[in-house]
Amino acid sequence: MNNGSSFSASLFEPRSIAFIGASTNPAKWGFNILHHIIRGGYAGDLYPINPQGGTWFGRPLYRSLAEVPGPVDLAIIVVPKEKVPDTLRECIDARIPAAVIITAGFGETGAEGKALEQEVLSIARSGGIRIVGPNTMGVFSAYPSHMQAVMTSAPFKQGPVAVVTQSGNLGTSISYRFLRRGIGISRLISSGNEADLTVEDYLEYLETDEKTRLICLYVEGVRQGRRFIDTIGRISSAKPVILLKGGTGDTGASAAMSHTGAMTGSFEVFQSICSQANIIMAESIDEMVNIGGLMLSQPEIRGKRIGIVTQGGGWGVISADLCEAAGLELPPLDDRVVSMLDSFLPPYWSRRNPVDLVAPNRVSMMTDSAEALLKHADMDAVLLLGLGYLTGRATRWMESPVLPREVVEQPARKLIAGERELVDLITRQIRQFGKPIIPVVDIVGFDEPGENNIVRHLDTKGIMAYSSPEQAIRALAKAQDYYERRRTRAEALQASR
Amino acid sequence: MNNGSSFSASLFEPRSIAFIGASTNPAKWGFNILHHIIRGGYAGDLYPINPQGGTWFGRPLYRSLAEVPGPVDLAIIVVPKEKVPDTLRECIDARIPAAVIITAGFGETGAEGKALEQEVLSIARSGGIRIVGPNTMGVFSAYPSHMQAVMTSAPFKQGPVAVVTQSGNLGTSISYRFLRRGIGISRLISSGNEADLTVEDYLEYLETDEKTRLICLYVEGVRQGRRFIDTIGRISSAKPVILLKGGTGDTGASAAMSHTGAMTGSFEVFQSICSQANIIMAESIDEMVNIGGLMLSQPEIRGKRIGIVTQGGGWGVISADLCEAAGLELPPLDDRVVSMLDSFLPPYWSRRNPVDLVAPNRVSMMTDSAEALLKHADMDAVLLLGLGYLTGRATRWMESPVLPREVVEQPARKLIAGERELVDLITRQIRQFGKPIIPVVDIVGFDEPGENNIVRHLDTKGIMAYSSPEQAIRALAKAQDYYERRRTRAEALQASR
Repeated sequence: MNNGSSFSASLFEPRSIAFIGASTNPAKWGFNILHHIIRGGYAGDLYPINPQGGTWFGRPLYRSLAEVPGPVDLAIIVVPKEKVPDTLRECIDARIPAAVIITAGFGETGAEGKALEQEVLSIARSGGIRIVGPNTMGVFSAYPSHMQAVMTSAPFKQGPVAVVTQSGNLGTSISYRFLRRGIGISRLISSGNEADLTVEDYLEYLETDEKTRLICLYVEGVRQGRRFIDTIGRISSAKPVILLKGGTGDTGASAAMSHTGAMTGSFEVFQSICSQANIIMAESIDEMVNIGGLMLSQPEIRGKRIGIVTQGGGWGVISADLCEAAGLELPPLDDRVVSMLDSFLPPYWSRRNPVDLVAPNRVSMMTDSAEALLKHADMDAVLLLGLGYLTGRATRWMESPVLPREVVEQPARKLIAGERELVDLITRQIRQFGKPIIPVVDIVGFDEPGENNIVRHLDTKGIMAYSSPEQAIRALAKAQDYYERRRTRAEALQASR
Repeated sequence: MNNGSSFSASLFEPRSIAFIGASTNPAKWGFNILHHIIRGGYAGDLYPINPQGGTWFGRPLYRSLAEVPGPVDLAIIVVPKEKVPDTLRECIDARIPAAVIITAGFGETGAEGKALEQEVLSIARSGGIRIVGPNTMGVFSAYPSHMQAVMTSAPFKQGPVAVVTQSGNLGTSISYRFLRRGIGISRLISSGNEADLTVEDYLEYLETDEKTRLICLYVEGVRQGRRFIDTIGRISSAKPVILLKGGTGDTGASAAMSHTGAMTGSFEVFQSICSQANIIMAESIDEMVNIGGLMLSQPEIRGKRIGIVTQGGGWGVISADLCEAAGLELPPLDDRVVSMLDSFLPPYWSRRNPVDLVAPNRVSMMTDSAEALLKHADMDAVLLLGLGYLTGRATRWMESPVLPREVVEQPARKLIAGERELVDLITRQIRQFGKPIIPVVDIVGFDEPGENNIVRHLDTKGIMAYSSPEQAIRALAKAQDYYERRRTRAEALQASR
C-alpha cells in the first residue's frame, strides 16, 4: 500500500505507461494526448489500450491491461466516466502505482458526479493507487524522458519552469508563453478536481526536484491551507514561486466553485499569507511569464538603483515614471559618470538618467553606457530601450521597390550585424557584472522575419526581451522585491543562529 | 501673411513638397525620410534638394529652392541646425506656407539651442511661415495623398486613427501597434519642440478632420493649458481622445524637461482636468492601442452587463475577477436563458455566467451562446474566450511526423474552416445586435502560420482580438466608462435646452 509516500517516481519518471482509452478518432482526447506522448518521443514502454484491439497508425493496440506484456508504472485514463471505476480496479489488479484520470464529469458537475468521484477515490485508497485528477488536462514531465501526456498540442521543450495549475487551459496559456520564448518546462501538472493528490503534494515534490528552478502556480482554492502555506514558504526561500490567484472576486469565486469545486475564501487573507511566505503574486498570465522569464534569464537583482539607456526620449520618460510608480529608484549621475559618458556619447545626449542617446549611430554606445552605469554609477540593473529599430530599418531598405539593392545591401547588413553583435555584448556584460541588463525591444522588433528577428536571437542567448517598458519594469520591481525579502530573511536566520 | 489660421491644408494636404537636405547616404534622415515619402507613393510634386545637385537613385536633385520649377506647399527640412535659419528664409522667399523642421539640437539642448530656436521662430513669425518642430520625427498624412514624411520605416496604411505625440519614438510605437493589427492612421504628428505650432493647433485641426475618428495623444507637458483642455473637451464629446501622459513622476518629469523642454506640472491636477473633459487616460502604450482598437472595431457599449463565453474554466474565472475589479458586472443567468442554453450546449456546461463550454465540439456553440446572452439575457457585451485553439491543434496534426496525412487532413481542414466560419458568424452578430463581441485569442493563436492565423483573419474583418483576458477587459472597462459619460453629458445638455 502506498499511503502518500512516493507517487512521484511513478508519475514523473514512469518507465512504462498504459494509455487506457486510446482512439484513432482525432476528435477524441484518446487520440490527441496519445499523439502528444508519441510525437514527444517518450522513451519508455508505451501500451495504448482499446478493447477493440487493432492498431494505432502502425502501433499495436492492446485490448486490456491484462494483455500488456510488462509492468506498468503509470496509467493514463481517458475512458468514459462510467467506466472509470472498473478501469481503476484493473489498474490496481495490475499493480500500477499511479493514474492520471483525464476524464471529466465528476465532482465539478454536481451531486451525481461527486458520488462517482467519491467512489473512485475509495477504490484508489483501498487499492493503494494514487490519482491525478479526475478532470485534469494531464501531466508533462521533461526528465528523465519527455512525457507530454497533456491536451496542450504545442510541442514542449525541457527546461527549468514547473507549472502547477488548477485550470488546464491556464496551464497551457502559461506553458506556451514560456515555450515560445525558448524557455523550457520541467513539469506541468494540471491538478483537476484533486480527488486524491492535491497542489500541496505536487509542490512538495517540486521542492526537492532538482530540475525545477522556478514554480508557476495557478490556484483557485486550496484544500489544505496550513500545509500549502508551509510548503510554499519553504520553497520560496530556495526557488521563486509565482502565483496567480483565480476567484479573487465574488463572481470569479462562484465561477471557480463551478469550475473545480474549489472554495476560494477571502483573497485579502490569502494575499497577506502569501506575502508573508514571500510568494510573488502575479496579476495576470502575462505578468507571471514576464517575471519568470526575467528571473531565469538574469542574475539576482541586488537593489533598487536602476539605470536606463534609451534610443528615444519618450521611452525614457515613461520608463522613469513606471520605475517611480513601482518603487524603483533612478539615481542621478554624478559628474564623474557624466564625463565618462561624455567621452564617447554624441554631444546632444541627455546628461542624466535616463541616458537618452537620441538615435545613436553606433550600437556599442548602448553597451558602453550600460557598462558606465553598472560599473561606475553602481546601478543594480540597467534597462536598454529601443533595440531592434536598426534591424527594422535595414529590413525595410532591403524590401523597398524604390532603392537599388547595391546601394542598401552593405549598410543594411552592417546595421543587422551590429544589432546582433549588441546581443553578444549584452550577454557578456550580464556575466561580467553579474547584474541584470534588460532589453526592451519595441513590438516593431518582434515582427521581423527570419534571422533578422532580434527577439529570437535574444531568446537563443537565454535573455528575455520585453515588448514595452511597462512589462519589463513591473517584472523587475516584483523580482527585486522577492530577492530583497529573501536576502533579509536569510540574514535574519543567520543572525538568530 | 498667415497668422495661425490655416496651416493645415499646406501641412496635411500639400500639392507639392520641397525636401531640403536630401541625401544618398542611408545613415542620414535626409535619405530615410525621403525614402519613406517616395516608397509611400506621395502623389504630389516632390522636389528633393541638395546643393551638390545630381540624382537620388534616378530622380533629379535640385540645388536650391530657386531651381524648383513650381510652387511649393510644404518644406521638409533636414539640414544641419546652423543652416536652418537661412533655409527658412529661402522658404519664405519662395512663399512656402509651412515647414517641418526635422533637425534637432535646438531648445532641447540648452541655452545656445534655445537662442537658435528663438531665432528660427522670429524668422518664421516675420515671414508668415508655420513650423512643425524643430526636433520632430515628422508628419504622416493619409489623405488626400499618402505622405509618409516620418522617421518611422514601417509602411503606413490609411485609416481612422490620428496620433499626436510629443515623442517621436512613442509616435512610432503607437502607430506601429495599430498598423500591425490592420488599423490605419489618418495623421501622425510628432510635435517636437513646438516652437511655433503646438499640440493645441494639431488637436484643433483634428477636431474637424473627417478622416479622423479617434485620437491618440502622448503629452509630456502642455504650453496652453486652457486651450488644451477646451479643445480636448470639445473633441471628446464627438470622438474619443486617448491620452498617455509622460512625466507623471518626479524623475520622469525631469527627463521630460530634458527631452522636449516641457514643464509637466502636477499629474493629479492634470488627471482630474482630463477626467472632467472625458479624456480616456491610458496607462501604457499597449493599453492605448487596446482601447483604441476596441472602440474602432466594435459598436458603442451601452452598459456594464458583460456575458462571458469560454472554452475553458480557468479563463472564465480570471475574467470574472478582472471584470469585477474593473467595475463591470457579470449578471447571473435567469432560468429562461439557462434552459435556452441547455437546448444546445453539452450537459456538463457551467449553467452560469461565465458560460463554460468545456472544450466544445462545435464552434457554433460559441456564437449560439453569444446570441442567447446578447438577445435574451440582455448583456451589453460578450467576451468570447479561447478562439484559435482548434486551428492550433489542427496545424499540429498536419505538421506531425507520426500521423498519416490522409488520416488528419480532413478533420484538420474541418477544424480550421470551422474557426474561420466562426469569425464570419461573430462579424454578422456584431452587426445584427449592435453590441460588442470581443474575441480573446490566447497567444497560442497569434503564432499560427499563414492563413491559419485566426488573429490576422479577425484583423481583416476589422475585429480586434486580444491575447489575454486582462487586455480585453481593461480596454472594455475604459471604453464603457467613456461612452457612459458621453451619453450622460449629451442627455444633460439636451435637458438643459
